[in-house]
Amino acid sequence: MNLILLHPSELISQGDSDSRIETAEAVLTGRRFLHIQSIHKAEIGDLLRVGVINGSTGTGAVKQIGSNSITLQVMLHQHEPPAPLPVTLILALPRPKMLKRILQSATSMGVKKLILLNSYKVEKSYWQSPYLNTDSIEEQLILGLEQAVDTTMPEVIQKTRFKPFVEDELPALAAGKRCIVAHPDKNGGQCTIDHQETVLAIGPEGGFIPYEVEKLNEAGFETVSLGERILKVETAVPVLLSKLFH
Amino acid sequence: MNLILLHPSELISQGDSDSRIETAEAVLTGRRFLHIQSIHKAEIGDLLRVGVINGSTGTGAVKQIGSNSITLQVMLHQHEPPAPLPVTLILALPRPKMLKRILQSATSMGVKKLILLNSYKVEKSYWQSPYLNTDSIEEQLILGLEQAVDTTMPEVIQKTRFKPFVEDELPALAAGKRCIVAHPDKNGGQCTIDHQETVLAIGPEGGFIPYEVEKLNEAGFETVSLGERILKVETAVPVLLSKLFH
Repeated sequence: MNLILLHPSELISQGDSDSRIETAEAVLTGRRFLHIQSIHKAEIGDLLRVGVINGSTGTGAVKQIGSNSITLQVMLHQHEPPAPLPVTLILALPRPKMLKRILQSATSMGVKKLILLNSYKVEKSYWQSPYLNTDSIEEQLILGLEQAVDTTMPEVIQKTRFKPFVEDELPALAAGKRCIVAHPDKNGGQCTIDHQETVLAIGPEGGFIPYEVEKLNEAGFETVSLGERILKVETAVPVLLSKLFH
Repeated sequence: MNLILLHPSELISQGDSDSRIETAEAVLTGRRFLHIQSIHKAEIGDLLRVGVINGSTGTGAVKQIGSNSITLQVMLHQHEPPAPLPVTLILALPRPKMLKRILQSATSMGVKKLILLNSYKVEKSYWQSPYLNTDSIEEQLILGLEQAVDTTMPEVIQKTRFKPFVEDELPALAAGKRCIVAHPDKNGGQCTIDHQETVLAIGPEGGFIPYEVEKLNEAGFETVSLGERILKVETAVPVLLSKLFH
């Protein structure tokens, strides 16, 4: 937790409307309280880096430490969060435990739009996972933002049917953007660095089936290969994002 | 498991010394048996991709399936494994669960020499973890090789004392190579792609302390930063390797 992320509703405003600096109080319990206590080992007066979801970052001074809560005196500056990656990441739904880690790592790298898509090789049971609940997803996104000192919440969309999504929704989403499907294919192109808006599709363990690659190619997606080595999805995501945007 | 990795000792040779193709039989039990049965759902006559540790790759034809073993008829061609990355990765010892994943992902990306180093922010208890046993480490390396269709076993070295290692051993190891320490530092340089031999040092969660960065700088290591976002070590490893070698 390199940043303590606050919900806007947690701020008890003391804002001076004349000032450019907003001050407020926030009372933290649960995970954040425990983290501040056991990892930061914070004492009264210590300054912690804080941020508001989809808002500013600033400083939180430790004002009070209770047995299960901590009160911060928050000062928010109009500091811009780190630049997002210009990417929409389409991911064949990974197995639940891997999904958690991927949501965190993709968020920490600056992905702001993530589409979880069905694919032939995605086990049906994955769609029933409690990790796909809104709260559970948000929890991972917040961990990723806290890691990367970011405040802008990514959007995560779930699409349980491959064909209707690729045929009916993807064209509008992909229009005007660089579109890439990562697939271990000897004829696939190499990743090239380009900071233009990109839609990147990554298959499940075992890859997209040829029919799916074909549908994506028809939708304008260029096949790109990472070479001879086949990587796990959780490794392929940071590798591809690094190779595409450096 | 994109490749079934065999120990040389598992091959019951039927080699024809005149032939360039070596044939042998291998009987698999345990994890590999279960994987071939439940994931590959292999039947008699099916062909699986196999490789021998530090040796060739080839084909394994399913010859016999027992209740807890599978017999493969193995044919080995003199196929080169995928190219390794020209890197020595020095990693402040991560917490054990993360270590497992990093060993796998770094191996799958082609790292062949990995040094686990102590650092001020490494919890002492990590060095007591059973995950540091030779067998446990080898297990993760094998999973990484199987993932990446590679056969060349990486070397993993443990160095429990930072200063003696950096002062007495690192200079010889680093001589003539590009040396980089990844550290979140506003004055740090950017990663540049270069395929020369590189020694890459990555700190623990929370980073190397200034004294450690200084020692590494003195040993000729250039500080490189990944920008504003602070990444978890398990994300930073694939990101850095991709940025340095593309």
